Amino acid sequence: MEEPASKRRRISSSAADMQSAITQPGSIKINVTGAYIIDHEDDDTPQESSSSSSPSSSSETTEQTYQHHKRDIRLPNHTAVVSHVAADIGGSLAKVVYFSRENEHAESGGRLHFLSFETDKIDDCIEYLRSLQSRHKLANGAKATELTVQATGGGAFKFYDRIKERLGVGVQREDEMTCLIMGLDFFITEIPMEVFTYNDADPENAAVYQDVRTGPYPYLLVNIGSGVSMIKVSGPSQFQRIGGTAMGGGTLWGLLSLLTGARSFDDMLAMADKGDNGPVDLLVGDIYGEGMGYEKIGFSDRTIASSFGKVLKRKREAERSAEDGGGLSNGDPNAVKPATNGTETADGPPAGVIADGRMFKPEDISRSLLYAISNNIGQIAYLQSEKHDLQRIYFGGSFIRGHQQTIHTLSFAIKFWSKGTKQAYFLRHEGYLGAVGAFLKRRPVNWGRRGSVEA
Amino acid sequence: MEEPASKRRRISSSAADMQSAITQPGSIKINVTGAYIIDHEDDDTPQESSSSSSPSSSSETTEQTYQHHKRDIRLPNHTAVVSHVAADIGGSLAKVVYFSRENEHAESGGRLHFLSFETDKIDDCIEYLRSLQSRHKLANGAKATELTVQATGGGAFKFYDRIKERLGVGVQREDEMTCLIMGLDFFITEIPMEVFTYNDADPENAAVYQDVRTGPYPYLLVNIGSGVSMIKVSGPSQFQRIGGTAMGGGTLWGLLSLLTGARSFDDMLAMADKGDNGPVDLLVGDIYGEGMGYEKIGFSDRTIASSFGKVLKRKREAERSAEDGGGLSNGDPNAVKPATNGTETADGPPAGVIADGRMFKPEDISRSLLYAISNNIGQIAYLQSEKHDLQRIYFGGSFIRGHQQTIHTLSFAIKFWSKGTKQAYFLRHEGYLGAVGAFLKRRPVNWGRRGSVEA
Repeated sequence: MEEPASKRRRISSSAADMQSAITQPGSIKINVTGAYIIDHEDDDTPQESSSSSSPSSSSETTEQTYQHHKRDIRLPNHTAVVSHVAADIGGSLAKVVYFSRENEHAESGGRLHFLSFETDKIDDCIEYLRSLQSRHKLANGAKATELTVQATGGGAFKFYDRIKERLGVGVQREDEMTCLIMGLDFFITEIPMEVFTYNDADPENAAVYQDVRTGPYPYLLVNIGSGVSMIKVSGPSQFQRIGGTAMGGGTLWGLLSLLTGARSFDDMLAMADKGDNGPVDLLVGDIYGEGMGYEKIGFSDRTIASSFGKVLKRKREAERSAEDGGGLSNGDPNAVKPATNGTETADGPPAGVIADGRMFKPEDISRSLLYAISNNIGQIAYLQSEKHDLQRIYFGGSFIRGHQQTIHTLSFAIKFWSKGTKQAYFLRHEGYLGAVGAFLKRRPVNWGRRGSVEA
Repeated sequence: MEEPASKRRRISSSAADMQSAITQPGSIKINVTGAYIIDHEDDDTPQESSSSSSPSSSSETTEQTYQHHKRDIRLPNHTAVVSHVAADIGGSLAKVVYFSRENEHAESGGRLHFLSFETDKIDDCIEYLRSLQSRHKLANGAKATELTVQATGGGAFKFYDRIKERLGVGVQREDEMTCLIMGLDFFITEIPMEVFTYNDADPENAAVYQDVRTGPYPYLLVNIGSGVSMIKVSGPSQFQRIGGTAMGGGTLWGLLSLLTGARSFDDMLAMADKGDNGPVDLLVGDIYGEGMGYEKIGFSDRTIASSFGKVLKRKREAERSAEDGGGLSNGDPNAVKPATNGTETADGPPAGVIADGRMFKPEDISRSLLYAISNNIGQIAYLQSEKHDLQRIYFGGSFIRGHQQTIHTLSFAIKFWSKGTKQAYFLRHEGYLGAVGAFLKRRPVNWGRRGSVEA
């Protein structure tokens, strides 16, 4: 359903237009013609109107409380005023999407920005929204309509009163699942170079962009935040939550913060990149011995038989060695090797494993748990896709964070379990499906090239 | 297929009979007529022939290296000599099944014993088997055939040479899956009061024994050891490994040994019984606030949204409190409460969480992880049963250990996901399916009431 060409380049930002945006929010058309993702490696300084109240300028001197997802979406042909922002407030992260003018000239169009805050710093998020309000007023004049908030996620309920009171504007709550699906449909159908598959034959150049605009239905969305939701999507606005698991990003990050002393998600992922799960996981080769008979059930000696299955054994060996007067008492190649690095951080001694005899490297533990959680999500996703006869599986949510090992593991799990018959798809804005969906809920009908975002 | 009555009480233990057992192992019939499980609460002193080489007598003075599963199976009508023992050597535990005479009189029949060793103490296990050999020789005369070993599990490969050399007898290796299925079929069809379901309406009296001898096929066996195997069983000896997960007993025990300082499986389960997962897991109520809107997707405020999802949040709150000069800075009811117990063990300070600011109780962590692992296995089992159209799901393996909370969680997961259409079954000898199967592999054809154990 292509829009008529005449509608594509509507350039208008008059006060009248703004006023109509308040009373008839459906009357603004956001123009996605020519939209593209900006890679901030090339363009690291977003062209925003500078302002003393901009949090991005103040963030240089004080602790930055948010993460800027450095993949703005340029909308060169959208020129009208946008008088709302969107926030998807989940169990761990609050994701914000907002629009800004390019170069303060309506004719240059604008861009969508993507930010995330930790949910337990929700006040920083609200403060940020307030700074966007001020900026909006500055840019559009004192008589401009106030910036309103589209909110979704559990926090849209939990923090509803607080947001409304602090910002002094209306907060529109939107259904979480509806927003996820609307956001995903928007990314699939409107944004080029957004959807990709993982090509494990070439890890250097593993992301292969996919044009999935034609015939995207039905599919499974696996949204991995603190927990995991799995949603079957049969058509625009036709969807059903079919399952999920409580073992998600919150599980990985919670356990790793206890076990490794890491303090941020990115620390944990960086450690996982350097680790080896072999000293932590019980591998098939550890149980059967080398090269013994397990091939016949489709395993290799590196197949993980039990995640963390070597821990208890190695701890007990170490205890016995200590009781025997120190030193290793046998020639077992799996015997305890004290970790020689990763045992200190800049912020003092890390907790957990390190306190436990320096027996396991935080890197190895991180790798093992990342594998365990990702494999598990991949397997459950595959089984749900079988039950509901779905061939395409989209992975979204803030857990993924564009991290190659995570994407590889999820992709491999789908390939392995489906014997190559199903495909895992990923998105460059994987964490912002719900926030974009909430943003789009305050949108005109027929917005977008294919009407994919109609409610 | 009932055996003729004339064969049921064959009493014979002559040297000739023993000799035939060596050359034609299929010629001994083990008589299961009148078999029953002994509850050692009633009978705590198994009537074995005492012997100075018996490990059970020496275990009173030295550290006991094995666990006696106190549910012997009495075989009052089996009187022939049994000249083999069986061992199922897995990634964490080696399970042993052997037969002994009752009161040293053939006429009294005998019993099957069930023991487990840690696999990394395999030498203790081999030593135990050697003591059984000596006892066998004592009881049956110097000219008796030597006790041989039926071995299965990965360790049957890994430790094959060691067992053979130390015991100086033949070791017969048996396929792991075949043994599991054979053992399960034996328990289902031959042993009364073995199979039970969990009745969550009456936790005081939750085990409801089931007679599932008629029409047991097809079914799903979920065997939970260090890792988890799922096997579809279509008929006697017709089976296929359809999946599994690496998140099994080894994962629970490995992570808990790191996180809580607990030193044995039973310590960990005892802690889980006393814990509350609420301070560790992110619950639906934590995300949405109290009583807000999540009922419509079938959740309650105690539904776990993310296992361990509250950990990172609470750690960061505590850090901020410390930076703010100590003390809690707000009235959040979820704010950090230092653990007041469980922070010490008899063997010195435990590791992990305790070193990490005494923020989380080991009991709560144990409860949370037990839920996470059990729920996850239950969900995957359900999804596999859907894919393969199986209504009955048997849970076996050493992970379960007769532990009520584990059984409850697995049972509930099947009920929840299947909306009550599928049933979880459990066994009183859940850890010994493979060992009993290996024991039975050296058995006559037509043994048992219904021929269930035919190869």
